[in-house]
Amino acid sequence: MTYNVEIKVMPLKDLLDPQGKAVLGGLANLGISAVSDVRVGKHIQLTVEAESAEAARSVAEEAARKLLANQVMEHFEVTVA
Amino acid sequence: MTYNVEIKVMPLKDLLDPQGKAVLGGLANLGISAVSDVRVGKHIQLTVEAESAEAARSVAEEAARKLLANQVMEHFEVTVA
Repeated sequence: MTYNVEIKVMPLKDLLDPQGKAVLGGLANLGISAVSDVRVGKHIQLTVEAESAEAARSVAEEAARKLLANQVMEHFEVTVA
Repeated sequence: MTYNVEIKVMPLKDLLDPQGKAVLGGLANLGISAVSDVRVGKHIQLTVEAESAEAARSVAEEAARKLLANQVMEHFEVTVA
């Protein structure tokens, strides 16, 4: 079966996120002042051929660990649709 | 009130996604062959001060339209948590 798997990769909470800070500054320059914090990460959609949703999740977690997320600086969440 | 708003920005379905193709090649090199397609976008978390969830959503949509998403090439989805 074919599964759509979504992986969210975000910078760890305790680390600075310079990209988020830049976006926050850009929003302030645009007059959007209601935003007090921004964090920017990656969203990856995988199309996985697997026998079960659990197998698809396991493939995606392996992909995230080995290639997509740097676990020193980022954490990831896998959602199987 | 403070709302956590998530914005998912993905390349439009009809457009090539060279970053996704590069990830797909990388996964194949790692021996992860169950993945047949990859698309890579951005995931942005905003902390928004607003009077209601609707107001927070509206701020996030304005931010996405004006700064975070290029609607010629990308579409976005806003989720208020």
